[in-house]
Amino acid sequence: MSREPDLELQVAVAKVGKYAVSESGDTVEMIERPQGGLSLVMVDGQRSGRSAKAISNLVARKAISLLADGVRDGSAARAAHDYLRTMRGGQVSATLNIMSVDLDTRTLVISRNSHCPVVVVEGEEQELHLLDEPSEAIGVHPRTRPVIAELPLSRNLHVVVYTDGLLIAGERHGDRFDVPAFVREHLAGGDAGDRAHSLADALLARAVELDRDRPADDVSVVTISIVARARPDDVRRLSVRFPIRP
Amino acid sequence: MSREPDLELQVAVAKVGKYAVSESGDTVEMIERPQGGLSLVMVDGQRSGRSAKAISNLVARKAISLLADGVRDGSAARAAHDYLRTMRGGQVSATLNIMSVDLDTRTLVISRNSHCPVVVVEGEEQELHLLDEPSEAIGVHPRTRPVIAELPLSRNLHVVVYTDGLLIAGERHGDRFDVPAFVREHLAGGDAGDRAHSLADALLARAVELDRDRPADDVSVVTISIVARARPDDVRRLSVRFPIRP
Repeated sequence: MSREPDLELQVAVAKVGKYAVSESGDTVEMIERPQGGLSLVMVDGQRSGRSAKAISNLVARKAISLLADGVRDGSAARAAHDYLRTMRGGQVSATLNIMSVDLDTRTLVISRNSHCPVVVVEGEEQELHLLDEPSEAIGVHPRTRPVIAELPLSRNLHVVVYTDGLLIAGERHGDRFDVPAFVREHLAGGDAGDRAHSLADALLARAVELDRDRPADDVSVVTISIVARARPDDVRRLSVRFPIRP
Repeated sequence: MSREPDLELQVAVAKVGKYAVSESGDTVEMIERPQGGLSLVMVDGQRSGRSAKAISNLVARKAISLLADGVRDGSAARAAHDYLRTMRGGQVSATLNIMSVDLDTRTLVISRNSHCPVVVVEGEEQELHLLDEPSEAIGVHPRTRPVIAELPLSRNLHVVVYTDGLLIAGERHGDRFDVPAFVREHLAGGDAGDRAHSLADALLARAVELDRDRPADDVSVVTISIVARARPDDVRRLSVRFPIRP
């Protein structure tokens, strides 16, 4: 068997809040997995602003703390659902996505409790397909469970997960954002550097543009790319940038 | 009163493990603060490899989960100490730093339970000083508490926090890493883009170079910069890159 090539994991998150609302109702958190790798949790709380933020925070914290304890993703999603449903009497819903890079099983695990499809591009041919099985938001119905996909970590794998602010971008103005087409085109367009970062940035910029610079909803995008390793160093890097209002 | 300028927060983390040890004993985690802003927790567990990782994970998870609940930084540090001391009978130590960007009080809060000084550069003159009051590691002595500094969020504030792998870089070869001098020089050298990212990267690269590409210990660097906002957009961005071994 030939030696597998060294790979690099790239994760990027880009978020913007609904226009003229001070707080985004989406929460994205990340945690190191106790067995190696990392998990991201993305939650879109019902409605927007402060009440949505409280909900998404509650759900994200519950899921993150379970994942940090080594609980498997599907159980963490079910627990987050039960917790929200108990706390809010089944009156409040939220969408929940958990994305895990599991270095133990060497897979990317994607859990969906959201109507938003996940875009997957993989292989030498960069074939695109959607994870779009019907899936329901958490918090309302009894025994809700996630739809889970598991993909082997391999070179040129790209996954794009987002909240529905991206899906509805431009709708007010009669436009429609064809996310899969945009992703395909962007990835075909070279730029071998930080793919995940440039893809997340481009998707968010396009959504804001379609909304005429006034996002109709909170928009969050998470991209995960596995690419051939460009740099020989063993350094792990994380970077965050965000505006601070006066 | 004139309107304050818009600011941008930049956070960067760069980490590398001790040479020939598969797992870094340092843990760095980040969480959104429930009242706005974010907190970073950096823990260096005693010794290296798997046992150190188990310790640093335990401490980081405890601190992160308390911070996520809205517990203040000083209490979270004390609780992490009590927890580690209880769990390990006072036999195992760890250094702990908590860095919080608190948008409620508009301050940067830096808690130290580490002998490593923190480098602070601030103001138009870019004056450099160290937070180096004596401070002890957690886990061993009774009633250990953090040394806390609180700095107002203002333009051109840079803070550099690190584990002692950076301090001892090069020592085996008779070299000494003058971290403050390196920081001063790097910040004086232009590059208005992602200051935090380039500074963390440069510090880590220099440490690895001083160790002749074979780090004598786990090295972690966290940099936080507050700069004038360059981009008009309200987007929050996060990016992670790390190698996956075959």
